[in-house]
Amino acid sequence: MIVCKFGGTSVANAEQIRKVANIIKSNPARKIIAVSAPGKRFGDDIKVTDMLIELADAALNNGDVTKKLQAVVNRFKEIAEDLGLDNSICEVIAKDLQERIAYDKTNEFIFIDNIKASGEDNNAKLIAEYFTSIGMPAKYVSPKDGLVLNDFPERTYALAESYENLKNLGSGDEIVVFPGFFGYTKEGILRTFDRGGSDITGSILAASVKADLYENFTDVDCVFSANPKVVNDPVGISEITYREMRELSYSGFSVFHDEALMPVYKLSIPVNVKNTNNPSAPGTKILPTRTLTGRPVTGISADNGFSILYVSKYLMNREIGFGRKLLQIIEEEQISYEHTPSGLDDISVIIRSNQLTEEKEQRIVTRVKEELHADDVYFRHGISMIVIVGEGMRNNTGLAARAAAAISRTGANIEMINQGSSEVSLVFGVLSQTENQILRALYDEFFAPITVG
Amino acid sequence: MIVCKFGGTSVANAEQIRKVANIIKSNPARKIIAVSAPGKRFGDDIKVTDMLIELADAALNNGDVTKKLQAVVNRFKEIAEDLGLDNSICEVIAKDLQERIAYDKTNEFIFIDNIKASGEDNNAKLIAEYFTSIGMPAKYVSPKDGLVLNDFPERTYALAESYENLKNLGSGDEIVVFPGFFGYTKEGILRTFDRGGSDITGSILAASVKADLYENFTDVDCVFSANPKVVNDPVGISEITYREMRELSYSGFSVFHDEALMPVYKLSIPVNVKNTNNPSAPGTKILPTRTLTGRPVTGISADNGFSILYVSKYLMNREIGFGRKLLQIIEEEQISYEHTPSGLDDISVIIRSNQLTEEKEQRIVTRVKEELHADDVYFRHGISMIVIVGEGMRNNTGLAARAAAAISRTGANIEMINQGSSEVSLVFGVLSQTENQILRALYDEFFAPITVG
Repeated sequence: MIVCKFGGTSVANAEQIRKVANIIKSNPARKIIAVSAPGKRFGDDIKVTDMLIELADAALNNGDVTKKLQAVVNRFKEIAEDLGLDNSICEVIAKDLQERIAYDKTNEFIFIDNIKASGEDNNAKLIAEYFTSIGMPAKYVSPKDGLVLNDFPERTYALAESYENLKNLGSGDEIVVFPGFFGYTKEGILRTFDRGGSDITGSILAASVKADLYENFTDVDCVFSANPKVVNDPVGISEITYREMRELSYSGFSVFHDEALMPVYKLSIPVNVKNTNNPSAPGTKILPTRTLTGRPVTGISADNGFSILYVSKYLMNREIGFGRKLLQIIEEEQISYEHTPSGLDDISVIIRSNQLTEEKEQRIVTRVKEELHADDVYFRHGISMIVIVGEGMRNNTGLAARAAAAISRTGANIEMINQGSSEVSLVFGVLSQTENQILRALYDEFFAPITVG
Repeated sequence: MIVCKFGGTSVANAEQIRKVANIIKSNPARKIIAVSAPGKRFGDDIKVTDMLIELADAALNNGDVTKKLQAVVNRFKEIAEDLGLDNSICEVIAKDLQERIAYDKTNEFIFIDNIKASGEDNNAKLIAEYFTSIGMPAKYVSPKDGLVLNDFPERTYALAESYENLKNLGSGDEIVVFPGFFGYTKEGILRTFDRGGSDITGSILAASVKADLYENFTDVDCVFSANPKVVNDPVGISEITYREMRELSYSGFSVFHDEALMPVYKLSIPVNVKNTNNPSAPGTKILPTRTLTGRPVTGISADNGFSILYVSKYLMNREIGFGRKLLQIIEEEQISYEHTPSGLDDISVIIRSNQLTEEKEQRIVTRVKEELHADDVYFRHGISMIVIVGEGMRNNTGLAARAAAAISRTGANIEMINQGSSEVSLVFGVLSQTENQILRALYDEFFAPITVG
């Protein structure tokens, strides 16, 4: 069985939904689809989810609820009419929205979530109706029927019982259309996943039914080896391992939300990223393992917005527990860190700057000086991380040298190098103003077509 | 004022002690000397300290104490006679040893320490007597008069009051001869520093009197830029910073015991490593800061005997506290670590293998799997660390590339790269069987004379 997920642009209008129908029809193994809310149809279009956030805001702040609600209904109405459906589905959607608006507003967060999630929920109903209308029997299944989430205030995740509840999904004759993005707690409270959460829903469904394949339909032909906004026409990736995909999760590789792959990863279910607008393209396969090609590097990702906490202390390396105590101080500020490169008497902690405030920095510096008696403690900002990833790097002796040489040819300085023993990745810390230049230089080094010299 | 320390080979016999006298005589600022026990006079000679350990062993295990004691006395007697001293000093030494042998044997450790330390103690007495005999008024000062140490079972260190007690040392007309290697607790128990501890004594004395210079006399002309046992005829280092010296403290740079520089470092007192056998050679100066020369690298050190603990877990980087918990488990086994290179979902901990046992490894692997729910945890052994050090590396963009390229030309693989934000050092982890080959390749890369191509 194949579980498919269709993102916002794949279900943005009637034309797109017809493409989805054709994709499902072309392979009978595609029995379950998770769908997003209608996304953008053109560059400056408004996503239904954003319209719903405006609606919720109007309901909470005495805005023009009627007008905003009608705008959402009209958007679905246009799709329904273009798909040749009668008005009954739009009445269902309008009634559903009115019920949500009338919902208890004591907890604004829950109220907003409830309205936001209606985009996916109603789109799933509409798509199921359309499939049935064209002779593809389909049924809408609500997350109420099995997708059980944990309670507040923890980050949202599916409880283990969900996988048991949903294991027979798709065993009937009908195609299952399941809304992405949300589920319910045991008490019946609706909770949403983080943005991009339809990917998680698809992944949970694929894991529940132990699918042979999880197809993730989006609007690009494949995952690129580098950010196309920086590198001109980067090579597409045909196969990539879970591990490589994870290591590349810095920007330019935001095809998947961080946690979305977890359920399928645990069962080694292969994932295929495909293009709804070009379904015959092979797309990018994400696999537990892959055959190595001649190219050692699979992708290069980069991200800015990092800071470095630098700590030095004479004889630091003789002190059992120094590093642990330092990390404890950082943990007590509820800060996660990326890397901790070290010399004999110094250690640096690489942190995402958005977790820092001037107050937190001051507290950390003071505590490290006073509690750990460090000689020197300070923060540096404006750092970018560049990650070179490839399963083929492991046995490639000259790779680090090639990477460092490519960077040095740009004239940029390397602030940090970190190569773990896994050798699937090589991380460079650089000044953010040199990031794009370095990304291009590294891409040229590892992906440029070989010219005969 | 200058404080001098003379190591074991510098005071091994009469000829060497005459050299010491000439060195002291040539500069009136040399008012305080810390001395070791007589060391080896030739390749397979026995150090006095080792003779004393044998003596202690004989005393504790019903061995031939008389014979072993006489051997030690004879060694001093030979020196005294060659220096033209009468027999009285030898009687002092013999009596001192007999008293030590008669000491309470309840605590064997304290008993052995007491005997071991007599080598330095009696040599200081002998040297003071000799200096005086040749018209250089000198006095032996016992560590009892001020060098106060902490109590057991902590590692030995000097209490802050020692620096106050000893601050007027050398203010008289006489040259002070102070035995290295030991001091006394407040209760009057003799404790020794770790081996190489005469360096610490000299450093403490230099800090106490706020010396202008701490001269450390040994038997080499200078500190070398790489281990001369591996690299053929390495360049000598004329100036090096404290920080560089510390980063180079892996093998091949064992001129100083780890903690020996701490007291002088704190007061920024310059250190000069010099050769007793060639005192006109400028030696190596260890300074708080130095003028940068054209050469970015100051030295390269290497050491084997490291292991890597490898831990991977999907979504590790999302877990606040993962690294800290891992280090806590390692700390609870009383293990210190060198570096923790990391990818997004994996972290490696570099540990000196001599801290590990099969049991400890098993416990760590089990705990990391069970408590941290890691996907994969294992140890790898036979790893060497190679450290390239230089204050001039900071602004040298191509250096990491040159180093990595030099390593890759040997055909060896790089298991780990770690460059902290201090940029004074660059660390490579490699398989131990490739260590020497890589050290030579790196030396050639950074120290070979520039040839015109």
